[in-house]
Amino acid sequence: MGKVICVGLGPGDPDLMSVKSHRLIGTARHVAYFRKEGRKGQARQIVEGMLPATAIEHPMEYPVTTEIHFSDPEYNRVLGAFYDDWADRLHALTADEDVIVLCEGDPFFYGSFMHLHSRLQGRCEVEVIPGITGMSGCWTATGMPITWGDDVLTVCMSTLPQEELNRRAADSDALIFMKIGRNLPKVRAALQAAGRLQDAWIVERGTMPTQTVQKLTDIGDEVPYFSIIVVHGHGRRP
Amino acid sequence: MGKVICVGLGPGDPDLMSVKSHRLIGTARHVAYFRKEGRKGQARQIVEGMLPATAIEHPMEYPVTTEIHFSDPEYNRVLGAFYDDWADRLHALTADEDVIVLCEGDPFFYGSFMHLHSRLQGRCEVEVIPGITGMSGCWTATGMPITWGDDVLTVCMSTLPQEELNRRAADSDALIFMKIGRNLPKVRAALQAAGRLQDAWIVERGTMPTQTVQKLTDIGDEVPYFSIIVVHGHGRRP
Ligand SMILES: C[S@@+](CC[C@H](N)C(=O)[O-])C[C@H]1O[C@@H](n2cnc3c(N)ncnc32)[C@H](O)[C@@H]1O
Ligand SMILES: C[S@@+](CC[C@H](N)C(=O)[O-])C[C@H]1O[C@@H](n2cnc3c(N)ncnc32)[C@H](O)[C@@H]1O
Repeated sequence: MGKVICVGLGPGDPDLMSVKSHRLIGTARHVAYFRKEGRKGQARQIVEGMLPATAIEHPMEYPVTTEIHFSDPEYNRVLGAFYDDWADRLHALTADEDVIVLCEGDPFFYGSFMHLHSRLQGRCEVEVIPGITGMSGCWTATGMPITWGDDVLTVCMSTLPQEELNRRAADSDALIFMKIGRNLPKVRAALQAAGRLQDAWIVERGTMPTQTVQKLTDIGDEVPYFSIIVVHGHGRRP
Repeated sequence: MGKVICVGLGPGDPDLMSVKSHRLIGTARHVAYFRKEGRKGQARQIVEGMLPATAIEHPMEYPVTTEIHFSDPEYNRVLGAFYDDWADRLHALTADEDVIVLCEGDPFFYGSFMHLHSRLQGRCEVEVIPGITGMSGCWTATGMPITWGDDVLTVCMSTLPQEELNRRAADSDALIFMKIGRNLPKVRAALQAAGRLQDAWIVERGTMPTQTVQKLTDIGDEVPYFSIIVVHGHGRRP
């Protein structure tokens, strides 16, 4: 019996993946990864040139991404059926061999793999290899420590309601905002209200070849999917 | 002119360090790392067997750890002088060669290296290689995702005052408590008051050979320095 092994790939630079993930990818037989229909997929992109010639690829193409709002029950139904189907297919593959699932960053940190993970419980062995998170790649790119001493760090998805973002922005030493996209104005407003807009940095495609690091006040209204807003803490320091 | 390169080592298992850190360590000439006097040091332990025979080691021994409380001005004075001295010594070494500084987890995430980093600014080139954080290693060890959907994650040092810990424990979907030690009773009380004590896990020495994963309600009053308390989020899931 094989197992499903989800390997964290780190933030984007292939050199930042773990020695263990690197080795598993280089000897993989079955390789599965999520992607948007018609795209190569970021996880697949990171391992470009690393897969053995004999590897069999299983692109798992999301049936919806932003066409249906996540509050619509139809969104849950369609995505749920998609995860059910792929859990069955990966499980079937483990009858003969291990299956490597590629995951950007750290799989258990807001990763899509967890929806397969929960569906595979009790059916086959599942192993998860942690990875460097996108946020670690991004705060390192700013060249400044994210947290010192006893700073509190709060990580928020920008999809949260405005009031919730306001409350969080006003009540943490260090802040990370992910999943920005069309929610950028909300994050800006929250940071402005908290008096922290001037201290905020935005890192686009952290550790990737096209990485940019800018002050949030210096950019327009469009940001790529791989963007993180960073506000550094300033705690105790000898 | 050489530079100072601080390499993140990840949570403990040497197989979880990045390909880049692994390569830099295997070819290092000067290797510096923090440790408590009379100890081997966890960072040095992680790279056991990886350093070239010709590497020159520079253990940086903390002049104080818990003998003086961090609120005492003497603590800041003694530690400040220690960091000043080592910043000078590493800087001097860069006249000829690169210096590799070892750092557990991710250097910019509550790492001691930042105290050298700030002192080296403008004096020599400093590069930081991110690493898998201790918390990623620990939540992966629990076998459950830390965050789903739009869960908020809050990271707290257990050295914070009781009221602050109470407030944070009561107001986040997912929670991480680090630097536990003698502050364990405070974290317990905060989680109890927030009604989340039953959901809390403690991971001791995550990803190391002696790792343990237990419910927080199942342990006594002593925890090792490398311990993290994890409370998982339960956000939106299709
Ligand atoms: C579904 S979450 C996945 C997080 C991933 N599992 C991790 O550990 O970082 C996707 C979000 O992660 C952030 N992200 C991940 N990697 C990034 C990178 N290299 N640069 C900028 N943002 C990144 C973006 O905010 C993006 O919207
Ligand atoms: C000074 S902080 C350094 C954090 C480190 N830079 C990181 O990225 O994880 C030290 C604290 O990290 C936590 N820690 C780091 N690695 C750990 C591990 N493998 N297992 C348990 N706790 C760990 C403990 O709470 C410890 O008190």
